[in-house]
Amino acid sequence: MHDVIIVGGGPAGLTAAIYATRRTLKSLVITEEFGGVPANIPSIENYPGFKEIDGMSLMKKMEEQTKSCGAEIVHGEHVEKITEKKDGFILKTEEKEYKSKAVILAFGRSPRHLEVPGDEEFENKGISYCVNCDGPLFKDEVVCVVGGGNAALDAALVMSEIGKKVYLIHRRDEFRGFESFVKKIKSKDNIELVLNSTVKEFKGDKMLKSIVIENVKTKETKELKVAGTFVEIGSIVKTDFVKHLVKTNESNLIEINENCQTFHPDSDKVRPGIFAAGDVTDNPFKQIVVATGQGAIAALQSYNYIKGVEGNLYADWGHKK
Amino acid sequence: MHDVIIVGGGPAGLTAAIYATRRTLKSLVITEEFGGVPANIPSIENYPGFKEIDGMSLMKKMEEQTKSCGAEIVHGEHVEKITEKKDGFILKTEEKEYKSKAVILAFGRSPRHLEVPGDEEFENKGISYCVNCDGPLFKDEVVCVVGGGNAALDAALVMSEIGKKVYLIHRRDEFRGFESFVKKIKSKDNIELVLNSTVKEFKGDKMLKSIVIENVKTKETKELKVAGTFVEIGSIVKTDFVKHLVKTNESNLIEINENCQTFHPDSDKVRPGIFAAGDVTDNPFKQIVVATGQGAIAALQSYNYIKGVEGNLYADWGHKK
Repeated sequence: MHDVIIVGGGPAGLTAAIYATRRTLKSLVITEEFGGVPANIPSIENYPGFKEIDGMSLMKKMEEQTKSCGAEIVHGEHVEKITEKKDGFILKTEEKEYKSKAVILAFGRSPRHLEVPGDEEFENKGISYCVNCDGPLFKDEVVCVVGGGNAALDAALVMSEIGKKVYLIHRRDEFRGFESFVKKIKSKDNIELVLNSTVKEFKGDKMLKSIVIENVKTKETKELKVAGTFVEIGSIVKTDFVKHLVKTNESNLIEINENCQTFHPDSDKVRPGIFAAGDVTDNPFKQIVVATGQGAIAALQSYNYIKGVEGNLYADWGHKK
Repeated sequence: MHDVIIVGGGPAGLTAAIYATRRTLKSLVITEEFGGVPANIPSIENYPGFKEIDGMSLMKKMEEQTKSCGAEIVHGEHVEKITEKKDGFILKTEEKEYKSKAVILAFGRSPRHLEVPGDEEFENKGISYCVNCDGPLFKDEVVCVVGGGNAALDAALVMSEIGKKVYLIHRRDEFRGFESFVKKIKSKDNIELVLNSTVKEFKGDKMLKSIVIENVKTKETKELKVAGTFVEIGSIVKTDFVKHLVKTNESNLIEINENCQTFHPDSDKVRPGIFAAGDVTDNPFKQIVVATGQGAIAALQSYNYIKGVEGNLYADWGHKK
């Protein structure tokens, strides 16, 4: 029986384990892939403390630190089912069953890919899924952004100021984002809207050089020279197996409050014993530095849950009566 | 005219500057002291990515990274006054005036000290203000915790499991914390409540060895042998100069929402243009890793404010209509 089992070994999950074990909680991290999404990032420049580090090195450092605190880490197992029992939770993987008093869900999400030729080949060689991470790499370059929601509008706006020119490619003729966002985008001289269009192919040699787009109405194709492409078409979030336990939103992300507590499905009541942190949550800021902060909070909250301490710490901690 | 001025150069402020400048915002950090509170911590073991690092080194790394992103940093100036104008804000220090479109308040807080003999001498030599940071240093030792709110109760509970025995010293005969917390504390065999008592002196040689306490009613004094003392008697927060602009709570901490937006004083309306992050806010988790996450969020929010984009990103980002 563990005190807390953390599903996911990315920045949120490992930080949760660091904080939990340092408080003597018997903690287990179960992670399918080493280090989560960040482990595959060739260069990270916006995690405070490291001017530049590759994702694999950063995640190795975090894992080593987590282990040195005394947490157990299981790699390569996939949690298929979580069942609530009177005295805690049972987490079932293909291999075996684990038991814990509390659970922290921190298994992240993957950005949705376009799945067209060149998509994999040019990932991190021109194709990016994070404007905060990679935007500055394309100073004074021509780039395109693919998508129609707030995340795409944000990437287009940022790149219009960092880059030289931005093509904003959207398969519909209207955007899903805030009105004020759309207005701002339309006011920018160096953003060219390419509506009713989809990406058919990424082309280049070592690095991305151009994209082929198709107008969905006229079926006309066109090749645009670009140094970079920011793809912002949503996330793949595998939360189906926890939907009987916690509330998720329309994008399948787990809803949390500022304490990293989750909610009962179909109600606004806090779900005792289950916490969530990082990219798998509805936190809109899919950044390592935000995920680590949430991991710490989730661990501290799970500690109180396990010890039987109740109350909204965020509102009351030390300074409200 | 800067886009954003960040008051405070600790983890929250520097992270905000990293995120803002990487989005091309012209950013200035004004900080009285280099690196804020963490710069004085001899050893940090719970910031993810560094198994162990001294606070000065960590803050030097963060500052170097911030500068390399292009942010300006002014040291040794104290912001005395912030005035709102039609086109932004004027920040006045003893030396000069600065102008910006948006402001991020990230000037932290200091833990309140007991101000008794030995207080300064044994800081970080037995006296600690952070159980999450220093708790594990006192494995199987006898320690005491001073205070009567949730933070003190939390420290006592954690140390009852890491340490051998805990004296919980409180000047009153009742605690201010959650009932469930008090109940838990009272159920612990190795926590001895020392009520109606204050600390008169810290004693030791190179390291803390004992404390002298006085019963406030009987005036009787007693010396307790302890290896460590956790002082949790509140914070010193110097927010008086911003109280005409933003809402603060009973402990003078700046109230924020999950977007790191502030509120108008005496109302629940969001205060456009002023954001806050880190220990100066009512966020109860006074941890570097939480402060950095908030710094990033505050910067991203200030970007939208400056660009005229409105909407609750936290609720709507990319996944709600």
